[in-house]
Amino acid sequence: MPNTRIINGVDSGKLAGTIDAVKADPALANFQFRLRNRWLDGGENRSLIDDYLGANQELRHEPAFEPVNDEPPVLLSGDKAPNPVEYVLHALAGCLTTTLIYHAAARGIEVKGVSTRFEGDLDLHGFLGLSDKVRRGFRAIRVVFDIKGDFDEATKKELIALAKAHSPVFDIVTNGVKVQSALEGNGASKKAA
Amino acid sequence: MPNTRIINGVDSGKLAGTIDAVKADPALANFQFRLRNRWLDGGENRSLIDDYLGANQELRHEPAFEPVNDEPPVLLSGDKAPNPVEYVLHALAGCLTTTLIYHAAARGIEVKGVSTRFEGDLDLHGFLGLSDKVRRGFRAIRVVFDIKGDFDEATKKELIALAKAHSPVFDIVTNGVKVQSALEGNGASKKAA
Repeated sequence: MPNTRIINGVDSGKLAGTIDAVKADPALANFQFRLRNRWLDGGENRSLIDDYLGANQELRHEPAFEPVNDEPPVLLSGDKAPNPVEYVLHALAGCLTTTLIYHAAARGIEVKGVSTRFEGDLDLHGFLGLSDKVRRGFRAIRVVFDIKGDFDEATKKELIALAKAHSPVFDIVTNGVKVQSALEGNGASKKAA
Repeated sequence: MPNTRIINGVDSGKLAGTIDAVKADPALANFQFRLRNRWLDGGENRSLIDDYLGANQELRHEPAFEPVNDEPPVLLSGDKAPNPVEYVLHALAGCLTTTLIYHAAARGIEVKGVSTRFEGDLDLHGFLGLSDKVRRGFRAIRVVFDIKGDFDEATKKELIALAKAHSPVFDIVTNGVKVQSALEGNGASKKAA
């Protein structure tokens, strides 16, 4: 029997193969994602997402991606694209859904649909520097999952728990990550130059 | 003299007006960003970014935005779009740049260029559930700023410090946010329904 059963659009044979490969050679778990961004005007800027380290190898997106950030008129720009905090919700939604789908596939659970809706509350006093007591980012984020499949509510809750337990972006957004910054030419690593 | 001097593509008169308006009526600082996302297949899913609360009013992006997440072949999907952790870098890059530009505009500092490059290190043991000692998200993020303008290096460093001190996404990514989740029909708020 070929080891290539597709569940939820994921090749569960390849997924099991990936897990076995990482167990045999832990270095294959090394990933590094990269991005360059350039300011255009006002609240508009564009990223270039091209090369990355995947399974410890240098790889490329072909073609590269060039997503844009902008701000709406109420935030004094041209509304040509989502703004950065909306992209945080987009990243979080995508990662929770993909993690749910892949972990379901690894368990042989066929999912028929996943929809999510998000809200993030933000107080502009922080961004404007009008108060040190108000945080700059979202005060809170809420998500509601709608999951379809031939399984009971306990299984839906288990899938949500698996997604929250394994999603990289859920970890980043809930626990935070250290961000090191440098100015070009001031001892900044040339690695990504 | 008209109160509409454009600096860095930002109308500094309107920016000052926004600050004064929020001082006079703190409720104008209330923003809520929203998103719906739907799983498509495998690692692919699409968001809808449409309505939002801005300056305490219900507003809309017109047209709405529909960014897509996907995963590259090494992560078992079709590479149609950036993946969620790449979107985290995109959001962080955009927010740091926009915050730098707006705070420079508020101080009358003309910026000629801002470029950033980002790296985020990720160990797949976390996502795969192969180790509880390895975090799921980025272990570390590094950013290098390249800023152009008729000012000295101390001013460049001050602009980076202002961006880090006021950027909503920098706050979210470095400090974390509480994310509340619910399953549709289980007492989930219908507010965003």
